[in-house]
Amino acid sequence: MKKAIDRTFAIADKQSEGIYTFGPLIHNPQVIERLKEKGVIPTDDIYCDAIKALIIRTHGMPLHLMEKAVQQGYELIDATCPFVKKAQQYAKLLQEDGYHVVILGDKEHPEVKGLMSYAGEGGTIVTNGREELPALGNKVGVVVQTTQPVEALKKLVSRIIEQSKEIKVYNTICSSTALRLKETEEMARKVDVMIVVGGRNSANTTQLANLCSSIPIKTYHIETADELDRRWFEGAEKVGITAGASTPDWIIEDVKKRIKDRGGR
Amino acid sequence: MKKAIDRTFAIADKQSEGIYTFGPLIHNPQVIERLKEKGVIPTDDIYCDAIKALIIRTHGMPLHLMEKAVQQGYELIDATCPFVKKAQQYAKLLQEDGYHVVILGDKEHPEVKGLMSYAGEGGTIVTNGREELPALGNKVGVVVQTTQPVEALKKLVSRIIEQSKEIKVYNTICSSTALRLKETEEMARKVDVMIVVGGRNSANTTQLANLCSSIPIKTYHIETADELDRRWFEGAEKVGITAGASTPDWIIEDVKKRIKDRGGR
Repeated sequence: MKKAIDRTFAIADKQSEGIYTFGPLIHNPQVIERLKEKGVIPTDDIYCDAIKALIIRTHGMPLHLMEKAVQQGYELIDATCPFVKKAQQYAKLLQEDGYHVVILGDKEHPEVKGLMSYAGEGGTIVTNGREELPALGNKVGVVVQTTQPVEALKKLVSRIIEQSKEIKVYNTICSSTALRLKETEEMARKVDVMIVVGGRNSANTTQLANLCSSIPIKTYHIETADELDRRWFEGAEKVGITAGASTPDWIIEDVKKRIKDRGGR
Repeated sequence: MKKAIDRTFAIADKQSEGIYTFGPLIHNPQVIERLKEKGVIPTDDIYCDAIKALIIRTHGMPLHLMEKAVQQGYELIDATCPFVKKAQQYAKLLQEDGYHVVILGDKEHPEVKGLMSYAGEGGTIVTNGREELPALGNKVGVVVQTTQPVEALKKLVSRIIEQSKEIKVYNTICSSTALRLKETEEMARKVDVMIVVGGRNSANTTQLANLCSSIPIKTYHIETADELDRRWFEGAEKVGITAGASTPDWIIEDVKKRIKDRGGR
């Protein structure tokens, strides 16, 4: 994600107007604010006359909208996360090979909406393996929203095994997200308070916060250092800090510094 | 399996000598005895001069032995169970497509030995998902001994998901075996004693007996009515009877009759 941010700032430095991102580039409001100051505007309107260059956000973009953007003659700049891109390709491959494509993920998340456009008309989204599965047929292919926990994938596949005879699973969970979850869990078990830094609309940041809370440990999910409250740290000897994939380094450094200085309101 | 038995008896009726089966045709000693009386002999020796026709048993046969049998000029009669045959083809397909083939099953079972010959040199047998998994690589294909319980498959796939990125599963569990397990479990919950009829060397019969014992319910695994003991039924109002896939009807009928007549020693 950091690459996508750097690349977009570089584009904004060269070109001063008409740069849009399809939806927010990443799920971090502070970065989006900085980009706006540089003239990079998030839009959901693919037919806006002011668009010259359209940046595809890290979560990807539905195929039919991408085709429309090309028809509109915009310069398309693809900042799709490589893990998401792989998942899209696998969804397409499965669909072409005659599999009923099942996407494990959050229906409302732009990444999943993008993936769905590669899964074909018969694609099915399953959220966290909880709801009733529809009849999927005998040949089922699975791809996963890159920020899903591996436990959810295991549960889903176990349920598909009960009804289908041929199942092809692409475990498209982002390995750095999985690693961050693991490291965060280890850290959370050793400290008294956990601070999770990142966009409240960021799926992977929220997942980190939920993981810490479930341990259980006192957990605070903040977007910036300004939200810190010194009362949170009363009696705490050790404080753990973790951050989502889309949280920029300057925000993390700011939080670290403020906590070290016994900061917060 | 009953088709294989009928077919073998029909062959024996037409031809009087030189008919061999590679290993016992099915895992039922009483049927094997009857076949022997008809001149159908089980053998493990592929180079026996007396062989004219060689019947491939329901569990299948390793590929290289089949090739040797053809070289020896024997007439080969394939009585491989269609479910086993499918599993063999899937193992071959996975191997050709570059998957590391994992077979879920009992290492010592002839069906698994046969499957293994289709899985290629890199194939791995995993028994019931208990032992440590070796490193399997990123592309793993799974086939299942037809008599395995689906729970074991779910567990195995969950473990593979943790280490591999692309997993293709052929759920080759025999649907009639799975159905028989389900029906047996339902029956066992309603009766006071369960009688499981079938070869003690039959994997699916033993599985039925173990399932009943685990409920728990008083369970007796017998091969023939002669083993019945009237003391087993003292105080019992309802008796359940189930049988393995390879148990012939005449043995089941015999057991039923004997129990109805308050039989046994």
